Amino acid sequence: MEEKLERKLEKKLEAVTLNYEAYFSEKALGMKASEIRELLKLVESSEIISLAGGLPNPETFPKDLITKLAQKAIEEHGNAALQYGTTKGYTPLRLEIAEMLRKRYGIPISKVDIMITAGSQQGLDLIGRVFINPGDIIVVEAPTYLAALQSFRYYDPQFIQIPLDDEGMRIDLLEEKLKELKAQGKKVKLVYTIPTFQNPGGVTMSKERRKRLLELASEYDFLIIEDGPYNELRYRGEEIPPIKYWDEEGRVIYLGTFSKIFAPGFRVAWIAAEPHFIRKLEIAKQGIDLCTNVFGQVIAAEYLKGGYLDKHIEKIRAFYKPKLEIMLDALEKYMPEGVKWTKPDGGMFVWVTVPEGIDTKEMFEKAVAKGVAYVPGEAFFADRGVKNTMRLNFTYVEDEKIVEGIKRLAEALKEAMKA
Amino acid sequence: MEEKLERKLEKKLEAVTLNYEAYFSEKALGMKASEIRELLKLVESSEIISLAGGLPNPETFPKDLITKLAQKAIEEHGNAALQYGTTKGYTPLRLEIAEMLRKRYGIPISKVDIMITAGSQQGLDLIGRVFINPGDIIVVEAPTYLAALQSFRYYDPQFIQIPLDDEGMRIDLLEEKLKELKAQGKKVKLVYTIPTFQNPGGVTMSKERRKRLLELASEYDFLIIEDGPYNELRYRGEEIPPIKYWDEEGRVIYLGTFSKIFAPGFRVAWIAAEPHFIRKLEIAKQGIDLCTNVFGQVIAAEYLKGGYLDKHIEKIRAFYKPKLEIMLDALEKYMPEGVKWTKPDGGMFVWVTVPEGIDTKEMFEKAVAKGVAYVPGEAFFADRGVKNTMRLNFTYVEDEKIVEGIKRLAEALKEAMKA
Repeated sequence: MEEKLERKLEKKLEAVTLNYEAYFSEKALGMKASEIRELLKLVESSEIISLAGGLPNPETFPKDLITKLAQKAIEEHGNAALQYGTTKGYTPLRLEIAEMLRKRYGIPISKVDIMITAGSQQGLDLIGRVFINPGDIIVVEAPTYLAALQSFRYYDPQFIQIPLDDEGMRIDLLEEKLKELKAQGKKVKLVYTIPTFQNPGGVTMSKERRKRLLELASEYDFLIIEDGPYNELRYRGEEIPPIKYWDEEGRVIYLGTFSKIFAPGFRVAWIAAEPHFIRKLEIAKQGIDLCTNVFGQVIAAEYLKGGYLDKHIEKIRAFYKPKLEIMLDALEKYMPEGVKWTKPDGGMFVWVTVPEGIDTKEMFEKAVAKGVAYVPGEAFFADRGVKNTMRLNFTYVEDEKIVEGIKRLAEALKEAMKA
Repeated sequence: MEEKLERKLEKKLEAVTLNYEAYFSEKALGMKASEIRELLKLVESSEIISLAGGLPNPETFPKDLITKLAQKAIEEHGNAALQYGTTKGYTPLRLEIAEMLRKRYGIPISKVDIMITAGSQQGLDLIGRVFINPGDIIVVEAPTYLAALQSFRYYDPQFIQIPLDDEGMRIDLLEEKLKELKAQGKKVKLVYTIPTFQNPGGVTMSKERRKRLLELASEYDFLIIEDGPYNELRYRGEEIPPIKYWDEEGRVIYLGTFSKIFAPGFRVAWIAAEPHFIRKLEIAKQGIDLCTNVFGQVIAAEYLKGGYLDKHIEKIRAFYKPKLEIMLDALEKYMPEGVKWTKPDGGMFVWVTVPEGIDTKEMFEKAVAKGVAYVPGEAFFADRGVKNTMRLNFTYVEDEKIVEGIKRLAEALKEAMKA
């Protein structure tokens, strides 16, 4: 049946009866399918070991618990859980999240208000809608989260890239840039950062840089969008509080999500920020989807209320830690001279830099022929200026396959380096 | 705990540390909280009978079935249901919806492709994003769905209103308008209609008008956005197929939802349209939320696959039918001379027109003082030009309260008419 429909649709796609393009908005005409997604369609064969994904491992989904919580949600809160909810989100969930921010990070709940979003992706789009005028200057890390670029790009900002090193965003270079812009009479509106276990970089911003970034925000009057999806996925090293922890002036808009500490399938995430900002984001959300799916919100609230989070985070950490180690060991063992990679303390990704002159997008098909896939790094740069990098995921693939995948990748790289 | 947070937040809202407005985009500065929502905050007392809502009755939620389906979703499809999904939607659900469109409405599945959205509201926003350039002319019914106006308005269209009568949109007046615009060298881009049991009007577009609307779409080259949330809520009269049924050229973009035939809390809805249009809507959705909550989609798919829909629709109809009758009888019995109302064959709303000169928004507080609430009609008009109307909901309130509510409303009206 599935194939039948798809065949009919393909036929239909050939049978043009309207001049479809004529109806699209100018913005829509400029929207292109992500080439990464197109590339990755090549990878659906089970022969290929894909290190390209960005998915949590389903082994970490607490299925029995979710069954129990879903039942509880209906039995005890059915009328609310199955009904429309408020745009801002299910109040008991907002309260639980506020409590969690206080307990886990020391962020006083009186400092923030919480709005629930349909994944952090919706949060990013809403932030674009509420804060970005065409031409506004947005600072992003280089590399940065692909889909954040996609969300923001719709609002026509001007991106400025600041490179990462092992301690996260190069705040010294940011400061130089800010001075330079100021001299030109220009101003940065937002700085977008994933400070902890960055996607795709894997690196974590040091405590000193976090504080310095806040000082700069105050001095140069910009807001910080802090995206924290991986915060809890720490496998080694010391916890560092979110930037929001030091935020006295309310300049940090913090994005958190249940996707990595519970399950992505609920699409339940949150924005924690100044009540004034939340109020405007709420109004913007009214026109977008009325409310986030309430059933998922009630289940997430029960998850926090039941005190399951801490124990489950331990389980997730224990599950991913060896995978990270296996990947780092395999990289050490098999990668040829001249290839470098980050050594993350957590998260889901390792970032690999290969010798200059090798274009990882051009190399992609050859790697797939050898039975391994990765994400070519180019698309993670706002200006697409860097060709010799790639992102590897270690959370999804079985342990043995990580080793075999790195082996194959090393072979593909050796050939490319010879050519 | 709830109150504690809210108190702290209110305090915070007073303690301004940043010049918040300075950071908002120009569009965001123009976004205002819906005054309707603000008005309705007055109505939270249990003493007041609210006919203002737009909610399905939770008595119609099949709770036991949902518990069973949620369990099944996790047991049989847990890895998919709890994971990220594709932007277009969970394939088994898309197939089931296509099947349903074929069986219930006779729309051949080869004619459409389906994309799942987070409620029809997201569908409306996506349509705005993909089709509306600033200044584009959008025809809406007068009155029309409030939140559709809100969604479209973000994209800066020019609205043209076409009045309703008992057979839905006045297609003759639309044709006049189209001719007039053509003479001016202008063109309508989209016509937005809720043809069946219109919100807020309650009326249904006749078969003849549906066909004529399509002819006009072809002649004047516009697209039709057909919003069909209430299609299945028919309590009397003969079924009329959706406009999409007669759509040979692919000009109709159809919006359907599970909110009224299952439960709104899942926020699972769909757009059925030409594959070329769906493809662009899909790309637009990538930047907005990656995917609709998968858990809800899997449950909805199991709901359709298990064949529960037909029987459940019968139950919903049996539950709402007497409520509609009770409201219509009470209006007949209690309303003073000079007050008119629609006689819907289904849906959730009755639309009341009171004598000119009475402003239902001004009258609202007095009605609340008498213990009844409604939605003043003004906001349902794109130009806010009509003051003497109101929307009444009959699905949510208990039967006795409908009668008592109408009695109180009649009293408030009599006083206003005397004044």
